[in-house]
Amino acid sequence: MESTNAQEPGSRAGDAPASDHERDRLTVPQGLAALSLDALASVAYGPEAIVVVLAVAGSRGLGFTLPVTCAIVVLLAALTFSYRQVIAAFPNGGGAYAVAGRHLGRRVSLVAAASLIIDYVLNVAVSVSAGVAALTSAFPGLYGDRVWLCVLVLGLITAVNLYGVAESAKVMIVPTVVFVVAVFAVIVVGLLRTHPATAPTHPTASATSTVGVLLLLRAFASGCSALTGVEAIANAVPTFRSPRVKRAQRTELTLGALLGAMLIGLSLLIGKFHVAPNSTKTVLAQLTDASFGHNAGFYIVQFATMVLLALAANTSFGGMPVLTSLLARDNNLPHVFALRADRQVYRHGVLVLAGAALVLLIGAQGDTQALVPFFAIGVFIGFTISQVGMVRHWQIERGLGWQGRAALNGLGAALTAVALVIELVAKFGEGGWLVFLAVAVLVALFEGIHRTYRRIGVGLHLGEVPGPPQPRRSLVVVPVGAVNLLTREAISAALSLGDEVRAVTVVHPDDRDDQDAAGTDRVRNAWNAWHPDVPLTVLTSRTRSLTRPIVDHLRAVGAEDEHDRLVVLIPEMQLPRPWQRLLQNQRGAVLDRAIRRYTDAVICRLRFRIDVPR
Amino acid sequence: MESTNAQEPGSRAGDAPASDHERDRLTVPQGLAALSLDALASVAYGPEAIVVVLAVAGSRGLGFTLPVTCAIVVLLAALTFSYRQVIAAFPNGGGAYAVAGRHLGRRVSLVAAASLIIDYVLNVAVSVSAGVAALTSAFPGLYGDRVWLCVLVLGLITAVNLYGVAESAKVMIVPTVVFVVAVFAVIVVGLLRTHPATAPTHPTASATSTVGVLLLLRAFASGCSALTGVEAIANAVPTFRSPRVKRAQRTELTLGALLGAMLIGLSLLIGKFHVAPNSTKTVLAQLTDASFGHNAGFYIVQFATMVLLALAANTSFGGMPVLTSLLARDNNLPHVFALRADRQVYRHGVLVLAGAALVLLIGAQGDTQALVPFFAIGVFIGFTISQVGMVRHWQIERGLGWQGRAALNGLGAALTAVALVIELVAKFGEGGWLVFLAVAVLVALFEGIHRTYRRIGVGLHLGEVPGPPQPRRSLVVVPVGAVNLLTREAISAALSLGDEVRAVTVVHPDDRDDQDAAGTDRVRNAWNAWHPDVPLTVLTSRTRSLTRPIVDHLRAVGAEDEHDRLVVLIPEMQLPRPWQRLLQNQRGAVLDRAIRRYTDAVICRLRFRIDVPR
Repeated sequence: MESTNAQEPGSRAGDAPASDHERDRLTVPQGLAALSLDALASVAYGPEAIVVVLAVAGSRGLGFTLPVTCAIVVLLAALTFSYRQVIAAFPNGGGAYAVAGRHLGRRVSLVAAASLIIDYVLNVAVSVSAGVAALTSAFPGLYGDRVWLCVLVLGLITAVNLYGVAESAKVMIVPTVVFVVAVFAVIVVGLLRTHPATAPTHPTASATSTVGVLLLLRAFASGCSALTGVEAIANAVPTFRSPRVKRAQRTELTLGALLGAMLIGLSLLIGKFHVAPNSTKTVLAQLTDASFGHNAGFYIVQFATMVLLALAANTSFGGMPVLTSLLARDNNLPHVFALRADRQVYRHGVLVLAGAALVLLIGAQGDTQALVPFFAIGVFIGFTISQVGMVRHWQIERGLGWQGRAALNGLGAALTAVALVIELVAKFGEGGWLVFLAVAVLVALFEGIHRTYRRIGVGLHLGEVPGPPQPRRSLVVVPVGAVNLLTREAISAALSLGDEVRAVTVVHPDDRDDQDAAGTDRVRNAWNAWHPDVPLTVLTSRTRSLTRPIVDHLRAVGAEDEHDRLVVLIPEMQLPRPWQRLLQNQRGAVLDRAIRRYTDAVICRLRFRIDVPR
Repeated sequence: MESTNAQEPGSRAGDAPASDHERDRLTVPQGLAALSLDALASVAYGPEAIVVVLAVAGSRGLGFTLPVTCAIVVLLAALTFSYRQVIAAFPNGGGAYAVAGRHLGRRVSLVAAASLIIDYVLNVAVSVSAGVAALTSAFPGLYGDRVWLCVLVLGLITAVNLYGVAESAKVMIVPTVVFVVAVFAVIVVGLLRTHPATAPTHPTASATSTVGVLLLLRAFASGCSALTGVEAIANAVPTFRSPRVKRAQRTELTLGALLGAMLIGLSLLIGKFHVAPNSTKTVLAQLTDASFGHNAGFYIVQFATMVLLALAANTSFGGMPVLTSLLARDNNLPHVFALRADRQVYRHGVLVLAGAALVLLIGAQGDTQALVPFFAIGVFIGFTISQVGMVRHWQIERGLGWQGRAALNGLGAALTAVALVIELVAKFGEGGWLVFLAVAVLVALFEGIHRTYRRIGVGLHLGEVPGPPQPRRSLVVVPVGAVNLLTREAISAALSLGDEVRAVTVVHPDDRDDQDAAGTDRVRNAWNAWHPDVPLTVLTSRTRSLTRPIVDHLRAVGAEDEHDRLVVLIPEMQLPRPWQRLLQNQRGAVLDRAIRRYTDAVICRLRFRIDVPR
């Protein structure tokens, strides 16, 4: 069954799994809940990312929050309209990997895949840490335990995904609506107030920098982390209810409008209340406090934020295992990533994602703002690649008004490329180089794996019809212990399978008998009394080792060239009750491992169910 | 090979492993280092255990340290002479399990074994925590991390024992001598001083209790933890150099003298310097400070103590896996405990010991004195059982002067029984009941396992000569993927083994093809083009499950009663380089697990080495 997929490397990227029934598919609000959670949830850390950068220039720096946010919203608008076109052009799902694979070649599609993987991992780490920050802002006593809380939340999400709970978009609507309504309530109430209900932290440290171009670019680059996730709808068009394209486009526009409005509103509030970053209380928590006061409303917003961020982390678990399974089917990752376990979960993808996010969370000590510099770079690589791919798409299709469409996607490509360059310049020293290194390493890994699978295909003579099968004489060796029912069953099975059968046993002379001869004789006498017409070889081992003498014996037997096919049949008893299985010794497993490692023999394991009388 | 040992349950307890060469065996100083480490190291926590109890009665209570210690030393003397006789009577090793098994019956020997296991575990936990306490007394800044330090030390010891480093008694002599010399130096220097070099902690809290009989008994019971380990020499007589019995007896007497002198000396110092217990600084550290001052000498003593205690913990790792392997060979524990891994280590015994000690260390938060109440009870159960067994031994032997010997062991039995009753009364509420419960649970476990092995023996018809083996027709089913070299190899092997061979493959229709028929046809055409003269069954699975359709198919085939022996041959490729093996999919392992779980088929796994061109 090995390497079934090695025979036809081909691109099936973008085959989003389609559910069978139309009524299970997504409407616009459900689409927002299922696919736009992480984009919407990013308002919990995006504005803060801007403020953290600007705060080094003191309150004069913080005054630039609104202009920087406006630049980001312009970019958001361009992306929203660009992706509206991607949806129309790729109704089967238009992830960057699919678009690039079709129009820009394998190498570019691998770069897109690598940047997507990095962003899936960062989305988990950032969402979890921001969710925990929402919690510790409400309960400052938990701040010291934030790393443990992050690990706990990550563990819960991972367990849920390993267990394979089917996500229900309908269930997710509730927290999404609560969060969006809560954020707008914070904005509206805050804008109507003349004074903050609770005074937020003001910048205490004096400015350590003046407002320069580089500072503004860095603030812009950090703030772009709020745009992560706007591509998710375009990847999943087939999951929408008919008319799919229209509904998906409407969802994309709604997302753009909501996200833009929230970003502008929050930055207005930041300016009005002179909010400054604070390591133990998030900006959103400070704004909520300023608008609502420190009452039940404050706790509701913090709790809704935490739940939404946990769900946002969960969306990576929906996306990355599917992407890694596609990569595995195209021979760019080990085939185990395409193997679904019993629960129909791509377990390896889930575990790799969780492990990588765990490393990031512990490395950053649960601090969201330490992770943000890495974020967004990968996203913008994907954005740019997919917009450039779209331009190529329109050029090839040349449908009615293709120039206009190409121009729009071209504008998107230009803006996202500029944003990417800004990210590069602004964050390179802060850790941006690590993301580039990671993309390069991942692409090299994909290419190396792909090359190896091609070589394996050559080794298997794929594509040729192999010669006819050639049966050979078989010699079956059976390691036995005492003479009992299990031994009888094993010798019976061996006689059914082999042309020649030999039994072998190991005696430990220092074990029960003082002399080698006595132990050997006892075993041999029992065997002769049974006279099964099968020769028995008695091996002795002074070291109480079981595997060494048998492996040596098998090698000697295998070296006799007269026997073409060497088979080892390992008998094991199978007890009826699970707890009784603890009483079985593990000799079968130990022998199996050693024989597999040191010989070429075919290993057969016979499990003989034994009735244990009460 | 299963259940080789089930046929002859018998007592081989006490067969200590003998090394081959006489010069590798132990002299008296080496015997002290190899076998008496934990007894000698117990002076690091034994006197403290007395002081902790007496301190609740204030300085008047602490005044009773010397009398209580003297009572303990009297008991030590009785034990030393009793074990001198045990050595003479059981030159092949006279552990409580062996003595009780020979003279007091199976049930009593199991009680002895259970109490020994509990003490092995407690010795590890107490030694590790006391060793870490010696370290944190020297470096108080580490006190907050003591639990982590305990886990680290335990992990190191476990790793060393899993790796199977042969203990060298010669290496252990150095820390043992350093420790003994250091403790005597502390005692002598301290007794010669008129005033302490550094004033130790004095009792700050006022007395909360008066000095009553129960308090003194509790102090005595706690202090008896210093006597743990005096039985170890008697268990290991065969490891001594000739004349074995004489050397072992001399070692036992030397141990008794050294231990008694150290206990008395330390309690004199405690009285002289009015030392009171202190949670962050051990009594031994306070005494060292008082004798030497806070200089290099102090740090040397603390470091030597820590090293010796770590080695003392290590002695349990020498003893318990051997005991559990003996229990397993007598069918009282699962046979895996008698299975040595490649490195000649009883891995299961080591891991169970480490796991249990870890639970205790974390439960006690690394506090030695929280563990001491549990300690010593088990030891005294073992002491009493083995002395009673010795009385029976002399009664049966009736050699020259047997009455005197029986009287001496009888005195030992009486004293240890009294001490056991004291332990019972004094510590029952403090956690002593837990030890009794644990002994009862372990004995019930041993008995249950023994009963089950007896039933398995009945199921295997042990002791009867089974009927002759009966070969049957065999049907070999081969799950295949594409048609390639691996498939050819698998079908060739199947034809060598089976009377009838059938191939089976699973097609996922939603995977590459829109219709079921297309995928099925493609597979079938490739098969027919190869025409291997073996029928192919094509199964379809919409859920991308591989195992479900194959298991269902095997069950259906197995139900056709014409085929007597159903064999599944799973082909797997084996790639030459280890890193390439990461590229193999795990379908073989997944299929193996599922088929083993749901069917009775014999599973054969064929590994085909593939040449991967460069």
